[in-house]
Amino acid sequence: MLRTHHCGELRLKDVNKEVTLCGWVQRKRDKGNIIWIDLRDRFGITQLTFEKNKTEQKIIDLVDSIGREYVIQAKGIVVERESKNPKIPTGEIEIRVTELTILNTSLTPPFTIEDNTDGGEELRMKYRYLDLRRNPIKDNLILRHRLAKETRYYLNEHGFLEIETPFLIKSTPEGARDFVVPSRLHPGEFYALPQSPQTFKQLLMVAGFDRYYQIVRCFRDEDLRADRQPEFTQIDCEMSFIEQDDVLQMFEGLIKHLFKSEKGIEFDTFPRVSYQEAIEKYGTDKPDIRFGMTINNITHLAKGKNFQVFDNSEIILAISAPNASNFTRKQIDELTEFVKRPQIGMGGLAYIRFAEQEIKSSFDKFFTTDQLIEIANYCQAKEGEIIFILSGNKKKTYKAMSELRLELGNRLGLRNNNTFAPLWVIDFPLLEWDDETKRYYAMHHPFTSPKPEDISLLTTNPDKVRANAYDLVINGIEIGGGSIRIHTKELQQKIFNVLGFTQDEANKQFGFLMHAFEFGTPPHGGIALGFDRLCALIGGSESIRDFIAFPKNQAARDMMIDAPSNISTEQLNELHIEIKL
Amino acid sequence: MLRTHHCGELRLKDVNKEVTLCGWVQRKRDKGNIIWIDLRDRFGITQLTFEKNKTEQKIIDLVDSIGREYVIQAKGIVVERESKNPKIPTGEIEIRVTELTILNTSLTPPFTIEDNTDGGEELRMKYRYLDLRRNPIKDNLILRHRLAKETRYYLNEHGFLEIETPFLIKSTPEGARDFVVPSRLHPGEFYALPQSPQTFKQLLMVAGFDRYYQIVRCFRDEDLRADRQPEFTQIDCEMSFIEQDDVLQMFEGLIKHLFKSEKGIEFDTFPRVSYQEAIEKYGTDKPDIRFGMTINNITHLAKGKNFQVFDNSEIILAISAPNASNFTRKQIDELTEFVKRPQIGMGGLAYIRFAEQEIKSSFDKFFTTDQLIEIANYCQAKEGEIIFILSGNKKKTYKAMSELRLELGNRLGLRNNNTFAPLWVIDFPLLEWDDETKRYYAMHHPFTSPKPEDISLLTTNPDKVRANAYDLVINGIEIGGGSIRIHTKELQQKIFNVLGFTQDEANKQFGFLMHAFEFGTPPHGGIALGFDRLCALIGGSESIRDFIAFPKNQAARDMMIDAPSNISTEQLNELHIEIKL
Repeated sequence: MLRTHHCGELRLKDVNKEVTLCGWVQRKRDKGNIIWIDLRDRFGITQLTFEKNKTEQKIIDLVDSIGREYVIQAKGIVVERESKNPKIPTGEIEIRVTELTILNTSLTPPFTIEDNTDGGEELRMKYRYLDLRRNPIKDNLILRHRLAKETRYYLNEHGFLEIETPFLIKSTPEGARDFVVPSRLHPGEFYALPQSPQTFKQLLMVAGFDRYYQIVRCFRDEDLRADRQPEFTQIDCEMSFIEQDDVLQMFEGLIKHLFKSEKGIEFDTFPRVSYQEAIEKYGTDKPDIRFGMTINNITHLAKGKNFQVFDNSEIILAISAPNASNFTRKQIDELTEFVKRPQIGMGGLAYIRFAEQEIKSSFDKFFTTDQLIEIANYCQAKEGEIIFILSGNKKKTYKAMSELRLELGNRLGLRNNNTFAPLWVIDFPLLEWDDETKRYYAMHHPFTSPKPEDISLLTTNPDKVRANAYDLVINGIEIGGGSIRIHTKELQQKIFNVLGFTQDEANKQFGFLMHAFEFGTPPHGGIALGFDRLCALIGGSESIRDFIAFPKNQAARDMMIDAPSNISTEQLNELHIEIKL
Repeated sequence: MLRTHHCGELRLKDVNKEVTLCGWVQRKRDKGNIIWIDLRDRFGITQLTFEKNKTEQKIIDLVDSIGREYVIQAKGIVVERESKNPKIPTGEIEIRVTELTILNTSLTPPFTIEDNTDGGEELRMKYRYLDLRRNPIKDNLILRHRLAKETRYYLNEHGFLEIETPFLIKSTPEGARDFVVPSRLHPGEFYALPQSPQTFKQLLMVAGFDRYYQIVRCFRDEDLRADRQPEFTQIDCEMSFIEQDDVLQMFEGLIKHLFKSEKGIEFDTFPRVSYQEAIEKYGTDKPDIRFGMTINNITHLAKGKNFQVFDNSEIILAISAPNASNFTRKQIDELTEFVKRPQIGMGGLAYIRFAEQEIKSSFDKFFTTDQLIEIANYCQAKEGEIIFILSGNKKKTYKAMSELRLELGNRLGLRNNNTFAPLWVIDFPLLEWDDETKRYYAMHHPFTSPKPEDISLLTTNPDKVRANAYDLVINGIEIGGGSIRIHTKELQQKIFNVLGFTQDEANKQFGFLMHAFEFGTPPHGGIALGFDRLCALIGGSESIRDFIAFPKNQAARDMMIDAPSNISTEQLNELHIEIKL
């Protein structure tokens, strides 16, 4: 080892020890007689001192030549500092250097290696290896390491086996777009990179492995929305001989373990909310329950009062925002603009201001005070609140109300990054009707099991069939989802039927899995958690990119290594493909 | 949970408990009055009993319908067995079944689910989910799980951080052939799948992470030799501020920890053998040192005795095989054929039989008894041994002698799968001269550091420059290798020079890493261990395929899911490529 200690290690008790440290020059201060260097490594910062006249002149000369981010090795004696720095663990000591070696020089970094850097996003992506030196990013990756470690610990303790599944698999037309890999040995054929190990983990249950997990990379060639990555990491799990409640218990336990070990937070039992209830109360299946402000359906109270906007609406929804009755005209205008944005697309925003003894609305012409009070009471609004009202088409209005609710939550400071509110959303519909293709689609995937009590509805009323499917949501973010799977061929065929597959099509696309189901498949189910997002959430950030060592940008490009890139004609020929622009 | 216990859990102390078990029907025996079912799950086998007249008739009827590999749920009372089975942990009890449910049926499996199956390789690959039910394969994967767990435990304890590196990277022309992934968003451009995270782990050291590891999938599009897989798993590690000995100590510790925890074996310090010595004593840089039989260079004793074969040879090598003097003519003929095979390509095999007081050779005409004794003494041969002699071109003869030595080791029973002999091979040459392209190639890779004391030879005598590179070899199998890396731009440029790169070429191929080296790169080095092979070795097997859940066959094909396969024209169009057969 080139060092005896690292830079976060030495304390008062080490005074008088001769030590050797290695690291990067964070800062150099020259006060005439004394020069200080803050020496940094992964573990911390230790102060080195050089005293003119006391330290050998050739060392002083060397120190003069040293710049920021130089890598040096310093041998010296640990001494107690005169002016201590209580902000860092090594702040009571410093090293009086007796030997100094420059292990490597450094060009001036293109941005400062500080907690708050002056580097822009693109520059930091290009020089990711320098950005990773900054404490916030470094700490994110160490957090990620710990969370992976604790995840494995918990799952190992609960009898799960980590089993690796292949990356070079088969492309399937259902689902998102695959990344594919041309085969050189099999001209004209392609592997696909897995969107998830779904079929393999089900096959591992068929194989009898009982409890499987993997922290595994997955790939989706999608047009990147904000904060999506073409490759992402999943905590992927599957269990046999279980029912839905067993899966929820097990993974509620995992989340509790992670928050306990990392944040010291202890959760009560997670609330379970049905899909139906989530939509009705929060307008979304990913509710942020850090705050209330639930949605009220006031259609029956607001319709038929000759206010055209309401009268022409399928549904009228209201939420009452606490401590908001003093919102200014300008604030309300901003919120109105917010819901009128094309992404939300509402026609306008109505409101009832419920201030000190006075109730007033944006549609006073049409409603009596008593009628406004009736609405306010229905919404359980209290004095000092504003009731915001949106109306229109049912689906769109619920979605808009969800967005408005979150925006109000932000504005009212109800969405604190250090508060965590997990819940399970359960009882998802099994099927979604698509008006365009005039067929049902599986809401999760075609292997999701319907609730046994709803199976009879499959032929009579497919919309009403609920799935044994569940999502884990924390702070309005979908952290994971899963389902109990179908495990008999009969039910699987029935579902394919409802989905409009011919037997031939079903066999072609899912033949090998269907065939496997015929050889003694146990009841099984599982879950997959988005590990990047879970890390970001626990790390108190909204950006997953800062929790990935080498992320890609919005255009799916690695700015540092400059990938993707051209390959040689020779390579293309070997792979039996050519480019067609 | 559909069960109260698993099938490996119940003991005498559980007698009289009411339990519910789930699992697969391993075997059903009907002895008239009593029917037994061996119920199997991942954890073991428990015997179920059904007694005609005592057990309800509808259960007996159900039992009648049950076949091999059916999945059942059985509720019943734990009772002490009359005839106990000491071979299984649950052998003292059985379950008197009171409720029975068939959870799933099974077709008759295409091969028997037994330790020794009747299924051929291809059939077992196609029905991998059934093959995985067999104990030997199942146990292999559980062993693999444990080894991954213990590897992470050891490395975590030693301050390593597990950091995930990307899978969609950039293709580099040096090294083996890449698998590539066409980019849809960047027409005509491609990602490559990593052959190893080499550059990323070096960049993590530049970033200051100090100690990194990952158990990570790697990809090589090579023509598959025996027991190679296009995707394989590596324990990938890198450390900063270290020297070669630190890396060897650290990973010797890892190997010791794995063998201790898995096999209860404690190793002494691993021998370290230089590349030069390995070649001279064993004819290979991957010596199997479970047995001696080292190579003797007898050129000076055997040349010039008018035996043309020897006289025309560059080198004459001999090994003395213990307990072999009674080898029959037939056995020696077999060995002669062995070395004459095209893969080895020797002209013949000479020998000296050193039997009870008598010494005789296959070239008696040319050598006196004293001369033969002189050779025998030089080889430290004892009575009862045969000295085998090969001669010819130096490189080829060492290689042939290595093969012969291993073959003799096999025949003499000196290569026991449950004996383990690890060693480090060190001091590899930095460069290899290629006669065809008339240039030097890096023996490991171009970022491997030369030994500091040999740097001056780079310009004068490149062949003689030794690298700070090392391989871990166990039982003649290369388990891993690594090196101290170059960390200054100056030395890196010097090496590229020797390798015949222009500065422009070097920049084009390795520009981003070279540039990173300019920003304060610490001295660093690392190692990568082949995890599949390590599992197979510790599992006492020579086939890595049996230690991979879903392996590919010799043609890089997944027989189970049938990948690679065709993709749609639509997909090809989106990816801006077309097939050219």
